[in-house]
Amino acid sequence: MKVCVLTLFPELFQPFWDHGIIRRAVQGGKIHPATVNIRDHAEGRHRVTDDRPYGGGCGMVMKPEPLAGAMAEAKGRMPTATTLLLSPQGRRFDQQLAESLAQAGELILVCGRYEGVDERFVDRFVDGEISIGDFVLTGGELAAMAIIDAVARLIPGVLGNEDSAGSDTFSDGLVEYAHYTRPPNYDDEAVPDVLLSGNHAEIERWRRETALMRTVLKRPDLLERRGVSPEERALLIKWRRELDRLIG
Amino acid sequence: MKVCVLTLFPELFQPFWDHGIIRRAVQGGKIHPATVNIRDHAEGRHRVTDDRPYGGGCGMVMKPEPLAGAMAEAKGRMPTATTLLLSPQGRRFDQQLAESLAQAGELILVCGRYEGVDERFVDRFVDGEISIGDFVLTGGELAAMAIIDAVARLIPGVLGNEDSAGSDTFSDGLVEYAHYTRPPNYDDEAVPDVLLSGNHAEIERWRRETALMRTVLKRPDLLERRGVSPEERALLIKWRRELDRLIG
Repeated sequence: MKVCVLTLFPELFQPFWDHGIIRRAVQGGKIHPATVNIRDHAEGRHRVTDDRPYGGGCGMVMKPEPLAGAMAEAKGRMPTATTLLLSPQGRRFDQQLAESLAQAGELILVCGRYEGVDERFVDRFVDGEISIGDFVLTGGELAAMAIIDAVARLIPGVLGNEDSAGSDTFSDGLVEYAHYTRPPNYDDEAVPDVLLSGNHAEIERWRRETALMRTVLKRPDLLERRGVSPEERALLIKWRRELDRLIG
Repeated sequence: MKVCVLTLFPELFQPFWDHGIIRRAVQGGKIHPATVNIRDHAEGRHRVTDDRPYGGGCGMVMKPEPLAGAMAEAKGRMPTATTLLLSPQGRRFDQQLAESLAQAGELILVCGRYEGVDERFVDRFVDGEISIGDFVLTGGELAAMAIIDAVARLIPGVLGNEDSAGSDTFSDGLVEYAHYTRPPNYDDEAVPDVLLSGNHAEIERWRRETALMRTVLKRPDLLERRGVSPEERALLIKWRRELDRLIG
């Protein structure tokens, strides 16, 4: 997968490319990241990339020409890439979209800064807008990194163990079960017995049940959207009975 | 505002502290960021911070003691801080939560890595879990940066012009209006006439209308949640009439 980021701050990406999963993915040839500095495509001695908004108001707006120049450079390297602008107005990025982007061969991400980007650049050069959530960042860079990170770990061979992405939160519509590691006793609390039992069927059942319970408590909206299986429904009914008894 | 991040990769944060809004906020004394390296609190020659999960399965789990040690260091500096764990299971971070965190004096953010964090650490040391969206990252670091960025720009005096956060997407439940800057003609497309008219009431009206139209097209869910004002309702009815006429 080739990914190219258009940004005014390419140096923000350096430690990101150089760490953890992304570094491993780059070294393994699974992902080819690049940045294009928008400022390199600005004219004049001062290489101005932003200007005041027409119609007045606060903040600065990114000029269309330097963005278009940076886009031309990126498109020159990967002509068929999908181009996405990071924007709080965009389609919400989620695990499902991450999975579909992980199938894409080429991706260009455009990072806005300041008050916004001249609409004429967006109309001409952007295939879609994408957002990581309903909050406002000072630029698209952190959102671009989050998207690249979430996508890269889904590319086969990037995670050490391919199964590792399969038990993630969201991969089956539930949040993950609780994790425990050594020591067996920590601050007077022992690891749940079942996890030490060696009975794999029981462990599997315990994990499915706690994942369901955690989802009920932390993210009931996930279950509302996804629906519940007959087995899960039976569990929910059992828990309700227990609550009924406690309430009296 | 004091913010401390517990992480295995403090070096990921250096360029983030050193750029843009965050750098200005640090230089202006509006925000005091710090990182604590979880590995510094791990024992033994190899300073191991993770171990295999009890009950088997893929991936590694972060051990409770190094996290607890890092937390003790951070709490020593700011004893009353709210402690939040970055986790896809957490409460969804949004602009409203950003505004409330911007009021908090002290914040400790815990970045998980690998498959997860030992549950006993979470039970003891974490006030709440927080998520930037329904997707899985390889670690909490990028989510922590996004949260710090979104919060920092809301602290009074951090943005160059205080009004600049007031016209953001979400600040009034709509996405932002379209932005234009020089040149007045770009690739044969002119800036909308009204923005050059100098008529501030007209410009204001155009911006409110286009913000509403863009919200209808891009994020109708925002309007469903928020409801519409009588003025907005009148506009929606006018647009429906126009559509009716076009459909015939």
